[in-house]
Parts: sequence; structure tokens; C-alpha cells
Amino acid sequence: MRPLAIIGIGQTPVDEHWNYSLRELAGFAALDALNDAGRANVDGIFVGNMLSGALSGQQHLGTLLADWLQQHQAEAVKIEAACGSGAAAFRAALMAVASGEMDSALAVGVEKMTEAGGSETTSALATAADADYEAGVGLSFVAINALVMQRYMHEYGWKHQDFATFSINAHANGARNPNARLQFKITPEQYAKEKMVASPINLLDASPVGDGAAAALIVPLEMAVGNPKAVHVLGAASATDSLAVHDRFDPLWLSAAALSAQKAYQMAGVTPKDINLFELHDAFSIMSALSLEACGFAERGQGPRFAIENDISPTGKLPICTQGGLKARGHPVGATGMYQIVEATAQLRGEGGANQVPDARIAMTQNIGGSGATILTHILGKSA
Amino acid sequence: MRPLAIIGIGQTPVDEHWNYSLRELAGFAALDALNDAGRANVDGIFVGNMLSGALSGQQHLGTLLADWLQQHQAEAVKIEAACGSGAAAFRAALMAVASGEMDSALAVGVEKMTEAGGSETTSALATAADADYEAGVGLSFVAINALVMQRYMHEYGWKHQDFATFSINAHANGARNPNARLQFKITPEQYAKEKMVASPINLLDASPVGDGAAAALIVPLEMAVGNPKAVHVLGAASATDSLAVHDRFDPLWLSAAALSAQKAYQMAGVTPKDINLFELHDAFSIMSALSLEACGFAERGQGPRFAIENDISPTGKLPICTQGGLKARGHPVGATGMYQIVEATAQLRGEGGANQVPDARIAMTQNIGGSGATILTHILGKSA
Repeated sequence: MRPLAIIGIGQTPVDEHWNYSLRELAGFAALDALNDAGRANVDGIFVGNMLSGALSGQQHLGTLLADWLQQHQAEAVKIEAACGSGAAAFRAALMAVASGEMDSALAVGVEKMTEAGGSETTSALATAADADYEAGVGLSFVAINALVMQRYMHEYGWKHQDFATFSINAHANGARNPNARLQFKITPEQYAKEKMVASPINLLDASPVGDGAAAALIVPLEMAVGNPKAVHVLGAASATDSLAVHDRFDPLWLSAAALSAQKAYQMAGVTPKDINLFELHDAFSIMSALSLEACGFAERGQGPRFAIENDISPTGKLPICTQGGLKARGHPVGATGMYQIVEATAQLRGEGGANQVPDARIAMTQNIGGSGATILTHILGKSA
Repeated sequence: MRPLAIIGIGQTPVDEHWNYSLRELAGFAALDALNDAGRANVDGIFVGNMLSGALSGQQHLGTLLADWLQQHQAEAVKIEAACGSGAAAFRAALMAVASGEMDSALAVGVEKMTEAGGSETTSALATAADADYEAGVGLSFVAINALVMQRYMHEYGWKHQDFATFSINAHANGARNPNARLQFKITPEQYAKEKMVASPINLLDASPVGDGAAAALIVPLEMAVGNPKAVHVLGAASATDSLAVHDRFDPLWLSAAALSAQKAYQMAGVTPKDINLFELHDAFSIMSALSLEACGFAERGQGPRFAIENDISPTGKLPICTQGGLKARGHPVGATGMYQIVEATAQLRGEGGANQVPDARIAMTQNIGGSGATILTHILGKSA
């Protein structure tokens, strides 16, 4: 693939943005990224979003954003891969620039969820799962993940409290991130006593919904030579698995994470040991464990042990979810993958703020659609 | 862009497919295309769809289809650009193969609309327009097009009956296409007396909804050398305009059609005179006129005259909508752009059946999202 670089990033805080519409949220993040890059125009716009049709009565978001940005010369499209929509938009933008069809592309993830009622949102989120064979029998998205976590605890002998490290780390980082939805720390005691959502998943295992947008501007690497803000795209891959969890040979193994990570490592010429920080998809604590295992950081069934025995804080051995992750930064579903890209890029530029990872040179992001059905892995590198 | 070819095509009839689910429709067309190409596997799957979230409670269609096809090694994603979703999926697939990230990509358009109620479908279709400034004030999609047609008739002095040629040609071709939704001819008298939908648009100016899917397999041209089925992708472009029609300097000029056609002509090294057939987006008769004008076939305001004075039948001067177009083949919205690609490819392979265009060497397709907000133009060429 033609070598590529990210030269501009932008984001809105993740919050209940009742004062801003979908197009404004996406527009603010996009303008931020363009301004950061010192650019006025862009050739292509790729918007990652999952729920705007259901929750805002608005499809056609690519052109909606191009219109709001007054970029009518640009081509524009919406990309959807459930909660993996953000990274899927990023990957589509990468391929568009790599193809030579355009010299710059804006990847934007946006979601506006908090104006809808809770049951409306739960129904809309269930469309990420198999409508006929999962949602159709009453399985909500959290219920599917609860079944996976229950099985994992049974198979490998873990207790609920063993997952506390993931949530505590995410909240500690979120407390230091001004863009995070939940800016407070939690204790092991709070984790133990939190309200149950779908056993064994309690509120502190589950990421909160939210409104927000994040964006990155991609150009060919040769157009970013000497640009101190440029971050290199070293590896990019996407893979799929069965949509329904019950169709998998092993429901506790994220084969699409393993495959996409393997491809991304190969493309980047790195191994897990080279990764300085990992923005993983902690929609539920169980997913953190499964991602660490599938990507080669932890032994199978030992994801919780990895988090307990290795420091996962920004100054630790493998920093994960450095700005709070889905758990504390928040999970505006179609935007999440782009928040991960923006946060990883900022870390590599030394702009991680209070959560800066010392000497961060190589960062990995992983965004998941459905219960592991679509998984995208990206590896970014510091320039020079 | 790396030269590309289409080596396999497939489609289902456009109909009320109450016996088949969304994944089956998409799967049938995809398998058809793979079988036509003699391939068992594919690297990437790009699904164009607009309404599955609203009408079938199912998002995440890229992976749904990869799963049904048992192509878990493939990456997959859904592409949405309202009624332009089909061609947008095709363009994303083209760029993915051109980028070198994959050596084969399946572009599939699918839509399942007829199980939903009429008002539900009308509401869902309105999400293609501007939710806040068009749909929000009660403008349905047909109403927006009716306002444009009314204005056009006023500005250029046309009567409703002057648009009859478009509908009569489409129905004559649809009557000879076994995959068409409406397989009957119509007369000028029927056109004149048809029931009104939104004045001046009557039922014979408007394309019918439907269920269906169409697919094409794309590979690098160098992998298709000597393949008699291969059709070359000569030109590909996408452009946008304001989402709301009232925001345009001239609501009677499809600037995104003009821009994308111009880019596609340039890439292909051809002019309108070289085009042997044109699959245009006749969602409403007025759109046929506006497309012909914006793409350089007719003078401004003279689209109806072009159709009246030039034979637009398959054996005519410029055959348009050779298999019935949206009007008679049917308009399963997110699938339409892929039906156009499949029909144009078949024509260039000499497989146009009773509607075969004699000596077809260069074909153009144009797919429109919203009321001209997103427009994709593709030019295909016969091999050797």
C-alpha cells in the first residue's frame, strides 16, 4: 500500500450534546482536523456512523457533512460496520488515498445517542447482532456479552472481581481526559458493589453511550515529509467472523482480532513487544481480556492476569485505553474507532496531556463491530 | 488508478421477495457473481444498502453477507449514500482493489422494502433528504422531486406529456427483461391518465420500490487478461452537492452529475459521443432529463426534446435504461446502482437478451443519492 500519514486530528468531548445536531458534531471534529493540518479543502470524506437513521431520522451522512463543511468538490460516503464503523471509515479513507484516486481524505466518526430513549437505543444497538437469530429471540447486545463473560469465567476459573483492573485503569485515565464522558476514578470496592446490568456484567463493566465525533486527515506520506505533526500509518487490516456468537467454534476466541492483528503486525513489520500503547475496544471488560489474548499480549484465558500482573496505566508496561477507553472516555458507537485513532495519534505526537505515555513510538488501535464479528486493527508510528 | 476489470456479475429479479431474507437476497446475487467468475473466494465485500436498519432491524450487512457466504477470511463493510449506495459500494470496492490492499472485491447492492408498510417506507426514504430542513417540514422524497419538476416545466415551457418518452421507453425495455419488477408496456394515453402522486409526478413518472440484489466481482485488469467475460472499468467518479435542494444556486442543474461525469469522461478518455448506452437514474422522469443535460447529451432545459427527437430505445441513437431503468426494472434503492453496473456489463458482454444494444462497446452508468446530492458516474468498456 502507498505509504500514508495522518496530518490533522480533531474531536469533540463525549457528552450529552443536546445543543448540537449530528452535522454540527461531525463538523466540529472535521474542522478541528482540517485546522490542525492547516488545510482548507479535502478530496474525500468518509463518515463512520451506525445509528443516525434510527435515532436521528437522517441517513446520507457523508454528503450531509460535505455540505456543512462547504466541501462540494469532495466525494463523500458513509461507512457502517456496527460499533466498528469509525475504524472502518478510517480504513476506507486509507484505501481511497492509497488507490491514487485522491490526495487527501477525512475520516470522521460521529454518533448522537443521548436524545433517544433507553429502550429505543437498546433496540437500535441490537441491529449490530444477528437480527433473525440473536436479537429476534430477545438477546440484547449486553446480554450477548454477558453470556460470553459467564462462559469465560466458567472455563478459566476467574471471578468477577478479577476484571476490576480494566475498569479502574479506564476510569483513572478518563479522570485526566477533559474530553471523557466519565471523568471520575473508581475503587475496587465500587466495582464490586456496582448495580448489575446483565449478570455478570455490572455498570462498571459496561461502557456508557454518548454523543461525539472524532476526525483525522490522511495524506500520502510523501506529502507529509518534514511535517512534525505527521504520524505514519504502519499497519491496517480488517477481518470478520460469524455475526452470531453461537455460530463460532469457540465463542471465547476473537478470530477476527487475531487475523487482523496478525496482518497489521506483518504490514508494519512489528510484533506485540514493539507496541507502546494499545487502544483496545473495552465495550465490556470481557472484551479487553479477549482482545489482549487474540492479539498476542496474553496467553489464552489469561487476559485478566495480564492486566493484574502488568501495569496497564499510561506509565506502565503496556498502557491500554490511555484516555479512558470506551469505558470512561465513552462509547458513541460509530465514533469510537476514530476516537481511538485520534488518541493514539496524539500520544505519538506527545500531546497525550496528563495521560501521556512516555516515549511513545508505536501505537495500536483495535475497533470491534458486533460481538467480535468485524474487527479492525491499525498500527501507527511516530515520525522520524 | 490501477486498471481494473469486472469478471463476474449476478442479480436476483426485482420483486416482492417475501420468501427470502435480506442475507439470502444479497447472498444469491453474490454467489451468482462468484460462480459467473469461476471463483470460490474473495478478499473484500462491500455492501451497498440504505434501509436495512429501519426496515429489517439489521445493520452490519457487510459481515452478515461475508458470514452467509462463509467468507470469514474476507474483510467486509457496508456503504451508504442513500439511493446512491449501490454505486458507492462499487466505487469503494474499486478503490480497495486499486490500493493494492486486496486482489478481489465483491460489490453488492441489496434492499428489502416490500414487507414494510407504505408510510414506514416513505419515512425511511425521507432520511435521504435533509432531516432538519426538508423532511422536518413534511417534504416527502417524491414531493421534493415534484417541486423540481414543476419548476422545470415552468422555466422551460414543457408540458407533463412531454416527459412520456422516458416512461414509455423504460416500460418497453422492462417488458423484455425477466428480472424487471414491471414487465408491461405502456401507451402515451395511459401515461396521460395515470393517477397523480404529487403533482406533476404521476405513478408513471415514479419508480416502484422493490426487493432485490445485484453484484459484481472486481479484480486487477492484469488478472483478467484473455478472460472473454472481463469488462474494463474505464472511468469512475463521485461528487456531491448540497443535501437540500433549496440550498442550490440552481435547483434545475445537477452539478454533481456534471462534475462526476466530467471526471469519468476524462479518466476514460471519452466524450458523450462515445457512449453507446447510458443507464441513468430515472427515479422520476424529471431526473432523466436533468441527467442528460448535466452529462452533456442534451442542451440545458432540453432533456425532454432529446428523448423525443433521438431514439432512446436499445437500437436507437442513445439507448437509456436498457433493461427498464428504475422505472420498470424497479428501484430497490440501495441495490439500484449495482443493477446498473450489472446491466451495463451484460450489454458489453453481448448478454443483453431481448434488449441487447447492437455493437455496444462503451457504457455509462449514473447513480444518484438524494435529490442530486451524491452522484456517482462509471464508464465501462468492452474487452479487446
